[in-house]
Amino acid sequence: MYSTMIEPRVSETDALGHINNTVIPVWLEASRHPIFKLFMPELSFQNWKLVVVHTTTNYTKEIFFGHEVEIKTSVKKIGKTSFQLNEEVWQNGSRCVDSIVTYVNFDLKNKRKEPIPPNIRIELEKHQLEIGSP
Amino acid sequence: MYSTMIEPRVSETDALGHINNTVIPVWLEASRHPIFKLFMPELSFQNWKLVVVHTTTNYTKEIFFGHEVEIKTSVKKIGKTSFQLNEEVWQNGSRCVDSIVTYVNFDLKNKRKEPIPPNIRIELEKHQLEIGSP
Amino acid sequence: MYSTMIEPRVSETDALGHINNTVIPVWLEASRHPIFKLFMPELSFQNWKLVVVHTTTNYTKEIFFGHEVEIKTSVKKIGKTSFQLNEEVWQNGSRCVDSIVTYVNFDLKNKRKEPIPPNIRIELEKHQLEIGSP
Amino acid sequence: MYSTMIEPRVSETDALGHINNTVIPVWLEASRHPIFKLFMPELSFQNWKLVVVHTTTNYTKEIFFGHEVEIKTSVKKIGKTSFQLNEEVWQNGSRCVDSIVTYVNFDLKNKRKEPIPPNIRIELEKHQLEIGSP
Repeated sequence: MYSTMIEPRVSETDALGHINNTVIPVWLEASRHPIFKLFMPELSFQNWKLVVVHTTTNYTKEIFFGHEVEIKTSVKKIGKTSFQLNEEVWQNGSRCVDSIVTYVNFDLKNKRKEPIPPNIRIELEKHQLEIGSP
Repeated sequence: MYSTMIEPRVSETDALGHINNTVIPVWLEASRHPIFKLFMPELSFQNWKLVVVHTTTNYTKEIFFGHEVEIKTSVKKIGKTSFQLNEEVWQNGSRCVDSIVTYVNFDLKNKRKEPIPPNIRIELEKHQLEIGSP
Repeated sequence: MYSTMIEPRVSETDALGHINNTVIPVWLEASRHPIFKLFMPELSFQNWKLVVVHTTTNYTKEIFFGHEVEIKTSVKKIGKTSFQLNEEVWQNGSRCVDSIVTYVNFDLKNKRKEPIPPNIRIELEKHQLEIGSP
Repeated sequence: MYSTMIEPRVSETDALGHINNTVIPVWLEASRHPIFKLFMPELSFQNWKLVVVHTTTNYTKEIFFGHEVEIKTSVKKIGKTSFQLNEEVWQNGSRCVDSIVTYVNFDLKNKRKEPIPPNIRIELEKHQLEIGSP
């Protein structure tokens, strides 16, 4: 599991007094840097490989300004050219949001899917959800 | 069906040259104003009723700066206290993103679900996806 | 003068119940599309020319969700390689924000300033603030 | 001086390959939390006191994704009801942006300015720019 701490910003709240729901995808993307580094060690956009193709997200608890948030990221599934991440947003001991994102290893220049290289696959497997884990 | 035109902003692009995926939820929320007005005719946050509880989204085509985007919003399902919207993002004649969002009619002050009032239900039904529509 | 209408978004409010101050630069940039088109008629990022070098902004009145906003943009000054825009944000008949931004005509690839071409200068002059105008 | 480290996000880049200029005010606000805590120790929006009335900002160097950013915040001036912060954005040893923001100690409920309390003034003075400092 990867863990990323995020400090909510005033600009991320909305007039209902909590963090606006549209901020969650921003935080989730910000917590995928270790994943991005596996595919693009230099984090260079010239050779960027990863494209989001699907997300499914449950919002179960409000998130507030003034308390740090932890994003817990695990690998859920690894396919031939794609993989899924399980992402959770925690605040004050409660899971507030859980989400699954599907990425494709995509060559943006040549517009085609590419197999996930074996060495990256091994790294991803290290962060895979264990069977029987909650 | 509701239709909302949106002009992509430079600040909504990312270094990959297209609209960043985290912008989509912002646009979708921006295109729900007619729905918000059904529940809160004054658009007042004091008596705000609607909370997002679930989203599921497919990203099928890149979206670019410089060309207007149309958001097409239909009602997919109406439950006792919740409803689902079907939302699509179109650009240059292509459907680029499709998404389903589930809202609960939620009294934020008293923290409890409330039945969707009959007059709002009638309005929502007018925008419901027709059976057999693509 | 250029005029751009903007519909404030829920995600642009903050927990103080108004539009967050960090949203203003986003709106101002969004209202510069006619200026961008003068320099880059195709709005292509490949040959983008304009870089912000300075802004100065007064926030005099709160802006709220639920009421459209008008951005009024005039040319304040045209130099050899740079120009200034005067930008105002109006809501409900009141000027809420006024701002001056300085852009340089900058070749991002070769990292050098370029003179403003005469035909663009003529276009900019058409939108220049008149002497004696408020 | 206050120092805040910020990790740039993919969603904060734009199609020109760098951090979009509209992100700077977001980062600057995010780095004012220690100032906000002086005025609102609970960081509660119910009794929020501070309102931005003026900003002036120089953009001197591009900022990129993939390298941490440091925001250096000092107190520039303390008036009766207002104060100014000097804010700088540094990346890879270069100052990329410098900005001055003016805040008013403003009672949002009663819509009136309030004197800065003596104990807060003492705290602000501790972070004041030294005479002769660059």
